[in-house]
Amino acid sequence: MPEGKSLHIYNTLTRKKEVFKPLNPPFVGLYVCGPTVYSDVHLGNIRSNLTFDIVYRYLTYLKYNVRYVRNITDVGHLLDNDEGDDKIEKRARLEKIEPMEIVQKYTNNFHVVTQLFNLINPSIEPTATGHIVEQIEMVQRILDNNLAYEINGSVYFDVKKYSGEHNYGELSGRKLDELLEQTRDELEGGDEKKYFADFAIWKKASEETIMKWDSPWGLGVPGWHLECSVMSTKYLGQRFDIHGGGMDLKFPHHECEIAQSIGADGVNPVKYWMHNNMLTVNGTKMSKSLGNSFLPLELISGDHPSLEQGYSPMTVRFFMLQAHYRSTLDFSNEALQAAEKGLKKLMTTITTLNKLESSEKSSVNISFLIKKCKESMNDDFNTPITIAHLFDGVKIINSINDDKESISAKDLENLQDHYNTFVFEILGLKIEHVNSSNDKLANALMDVIINIRNQSKEKKDWETADLIRNELKRLNISINDGKDSSTWSYEE
Amino acid sequence: MPEGKSLHIYNTLTRKKEVFKPLNPPFVGLYVCGPTVYSDVHLGNIRSNLTFDIVYRYLTYLKYNVRYVRNITDVGHLLDNDEGDDKIEKRARLEKIEPMEIVQKYTNNFHVVTQLFNLINPSIEPTATGHIVEQIEMVQRILDNNLAYEINGSVYFDVKKYSGEHNYGELSGRKLDELLEQTRDELEGGDEKKYFADFAIWKKASEETIMKWDSPWGLGVPGWHLECSVMSTKYLGQRFDIHGGGMDLKFPHHECEIAQSIGADGVNPVKYWMHNNMLTVNGTKMSKSLGNSFLPLELISGDHPSLEQGYSPMTVRFFMLQAHYRSTLDFSNEALQAAEKGLKKLMTTITTLNKLESSEKSSVNISFLIKKCKESMNDDFNTPITIAHLFDGVKIINSINDDKESISAKDLENLQDHYNTFVFEILGLKIEHVNSSNDKLANALMDVIINIRNQSKEKKDWETADLIRNELKRLNISINDGKDSSTWSYEE
Repeated sequence: MPEGKSLHIYNTLTRKKEVFKPLNPPFVGLYVCGPTVYSDVHLGNIRSNLTFDIVYRYLTYLKYNVRYVRNITDVGHLLDNDEGDDKIEKRARLEKIEPMEIVQKYTNNFHVVTQLFNLINPSIEPTATGHIVEQIEMVQRILDNNLAYEINGSVYFDVKKYSGEHNYGELSGRKLDELLEQTRDELEGGDEKKYFADFAIWKKASEETIMKWDSPWGLGVPGWHLECSVMSTKYLGQRFDIHGGGMDLKFPHHECEIAQSIGADGVNPVKYWMHNNMLTVNGTKMSKSLGNSFLPLELISGDHPSLEQGYSPMTVRFFMLQAHYRSTLDFSNEALQAAEKGLKKLMTTITTLNKLESSEKSSVNISFLIKKCKESMNDDFNTPITIAHLFDGVKIINSINDDKESISAKDLENLQDHYNTFVFEILGLKIEHVNSSNDKLANALMDVIINIRNQSKEKKDWETADLIRNELKRLNISINDGKDSSTWSYEE
Repeated sequence: MPEGKSLHIYNTLTRKKEVFKPLNPPFVGLYVCGPTVYSDVHLGNIRSNLTFDIVYRYLTYLKYNVRYVRNITDVGHLLDNDEGDDKIEKRARLEKIEPMEIVQKYTNNFHVVTQLFNLINPSIEPTATGHIVEQIEMVQRILDNNLAYEINGSVYFDVKKYSGEHNYGELSGRKLDELLEQTRDELEGGDEKKYFADFAIWKKASEETIMKWDSPWGLGVPGWHLECSVMSTKYLGQRFDIHGGGMDLKFPHHECEIAQSIGADGVNPVKYWMHNNMLTVNGTKMSKSLGNSFLPLELISGDHPSLEQGYSPMTVRFFMLQAHYRSTLDFSNEALQAAEKGLKKLMTTITTLNKLESSEKSSVNISFLIKKCKESMNDDFNTPITIAHLFDGVKIINSINDDKESISAKDLENLQDHYNTFVFEILGLKIEHVNSSNDKLANALMDVIINIRNQSKEKKDWETADLIRNELKRLNISINDGKDSSTWSYEE
């Protein structure tokens, strides 16, 4: 493939699109920040996970051997920077149960949601509590390199010293003096850190802390940023290919990851940093306090004041893929309803395509269409453009079906392959209402009904034909009569 | 409830049925040995998990507040006692991937299977790798109590010394001199242990070992028995109510757990030990080498030479519950097919029951039936007897439905409550082919078909009626005409 056509990734670190050259081809290491399991997963998590689900799927399509690691944060995520309670412990006190019961409950719920949206399971899903030893070891290495200091049983990363030798802010573009300006007001009182930008890599546990571990610095918990540094490098190597996450994690979380890896091992850990953009609702930032934030399951059930109806998981997936991951994604009923229609059209087209009959010659240019889809995916995983190209194909397929255009057997096979690969494998959509064993039954029953309908039409038994038409209309089922057979579709 | 009627549990430790008296009512701590995630979960795991699923469900029904912990063994399970490779590492080398990828793959698969069989998720599902710090601490406590010794970077539990002060073998009934007799042949060569019955609680890692952690004794891995001691007491307290597992774990695994807890903390950890019995196939032990061992998913698909057909997850669940957990469970096609029929009969009866009409007075004794079901569950969770009582009720329900017996409104409500609680909540069965949203469609379509059928019968349109009958027969769907309406059932 010529240089211009190969996969390009926008690298947050260099602020430009770069040709993707893995460190050890055909292997690719992909690390993605997963959820903190102290409450139901929110839509922002789903968008982030979906972004890297597409990255994983497309890299796999390109024949890379991807090790995909996504963590579960089950301890160490403090509420306000380095102060306050651990998020999970706070929730545990609210719900009056063990922190690890919270972890279990919300990990299970998270997995239910990832299954719903057809997100591929990562190769490894490591937990922070599963890597306490490794985290203590990394703290020690940073201390040994004099880039951290211990105070009162906590260990802080020495950002001031680090930034003398390294570029703290290289990922986020933040500058320490500007940050100082912004945070001066909050710096009053008994902060034990030596410098405002220092961050805890080990935090002394209070009496009440339930989840804590012994360490060379006494009982404590690892700092939140630390776990990702430890788990990414443990499973992918000190330097690996891609680190992904939401834009809100760029600073301080990812900036601190770089500092920790350099501080402990002298290695800048990530070649390509990727960040997905945020969600808005009717043009406004999605936030709990504004009351316009809905959970994934609310979006599906429609059970939220902002939602006019429920949207199926594949409608939501398709909708999200209609925006590029680096753009904000705006939720509105209009846009979701349009996505619902668009997805239905695409799926109907694939049914048509798979039944299409070939002619001797093609009157349409298939290879151009296929090339365009690959080019847009190669252009930093541009799914909305890819989808637009797939819709260009819809017109072509319908023209062939209407005998206005023709397609050769070889072109037809390529086109069928192309759609099935791009729609199901790369975009990860699936046919709803058809795939499960239960729907086999519904399909079989519809065949029976269509049979009865055809027989009653032949017999001119209009009463039965009318009964069937009315009953199916009531159920939102429509029958589309083709040349040789009838297909049906269904809106729940 | 009088003493004789309250819950009794067979306690392996005392070898008798005892009244269940939790340590801190209404709280109950339940720990169950989960799978070693190095290959697909086998049916023995499912039986064990099902056994304690019932225990959990019934204790919850009795209004106990149960914390249910079931572990995932993701490191430390050595192949042959204390020698040889870790099971997961060996598999990782075979599949040429990271050990934690093996762990992830088979943990995910395990969860798919537990969902299929409607097993309730435990409150906490801790992993061995998630508790390395705590395991190292427990080894240290045992060393501090002079009940372990270090040799060449490994730490062994000193069974000889321990058995001088404590009863090693109290759970399993094994005696050290008899064990010595049995193992003498295997004791040749360079075993570094001081005594044949000593077991590793920390094992020095070899050069090739991938998963290893630093410890006061150098790089190593925790012994397999250790994780359960650590995780059960961490989440349930040093002494807790119930520890469950398969009979094959009684010795050495559970025996060693007792020794470790007493050795480290001086506390005999478990009040009630419960062990489920093993599986056989046509009367022969189920084993891979005999080729008569099938996996849960093979049992469902029927894709195994020993299986005449596939059996639905609820058929398998029902089948397993038809044997008491302390009896062996024998798989045969005949028995599974009988269970399939029995389950169908039970489910049909519940449909009948829920539609039953009450009379002024009861001619049947409902409270006796309800009492019998509770008594059998209170008798060491005797599910087969409970199921037999539920079938006694089937006769009564059908008699009422046929107007041969009558039931009062209050009795009917009690009976409906009773069946729905015992069948769905306690035995954990669920209606297959009906619960999902997809089946809503199938149900709606069947309504349409039944409508057409009734209309065609009214019109004496035998051609359409015949078409419907034949088509449904082909699909294994049978319609049962009731007094006022028709129900249908379906075999896949």
